[in-house]
Amino acid sequence: MDHPTPFARTPAPPYYAVVFSSKRRDGDDGYERVAQRMVELASSQPGFLGVESARDSAGFGITVSYWATLESIAAWKSQLEHLAAQDHGRKRWYAHYEVRVARVERAYDFDAQPG
Amino acid sequence: MDHPTPFARTPAPPYYAVVFSSKRRDGDDGYERVAQRMVELASSQPGFLGVESARDSAGFGITVSYWATLESIAAWKSQLEHLAAQDHGRKRWYAHYEVRVARVERAYDFDAQPG
Repeated sequence: MDHPTPFARTPAPPYYAVVFSSKRRDGDDGYERVAQRMVELASSQPGFLGVESARDSAGFGITVSYWATLESIAAWKSQLEHLAAQDHGRKRWYAHYEVRVARVERAYDFDAQPG
Repeated sequence: MDHPTPFARTPAPPYYAVVFSSKRRDGDDGYERVAQRMVELASSQPGFLGVESARDSAGFGITVSYWATLESIAAWKSQLEHLAAQDHGRKRWYAHYEVRVARVERAYDFDAQPG
């Protein structure tokens, strides 16, 4: 990983977020390798701003990817290797998922002070 | 919990999402009890549509709450018991967090067929 932090370093809004909530089926079945590859591939796409991801021990996860424009999201959705991964996802990896495309209007953060 | 599923059952867009990405500090320090209470309290607020949450074993988590309007988000942010929890969060529970408020424009889902 290039990033020592799990947080995406996004610019000032507005930009777009794709919220992908998913429940995995049991077993890896090639998932981890492809998931890692999709993060790398997404990171090289025009308009990609960052990604954050967490999955719990019960197999429920949320991945949020951030994009400059709706056009960049559409291009990523139809990227050929990503299309193949989406197909595998539906056939092998996910019991259920939800995708929500949203326009980020406002953002702020907090960082704990040492001590 | 009222919901046997980790997925939020949201209406057709548009609606709003608050994406809360956070890194916990070590130790519980009262966190789990208050986090559960905040989900219950949020669920009773006007305009609340649902919540999804995942945290990994390294303490990085994403919670996305869904709301009907920006006004309902502002009201929740300034709810008194929630304000106290936010203060505890900054002082005791979180090393870092990011909050993004976004307008959900489009949504779709997938459910695996049995067999």
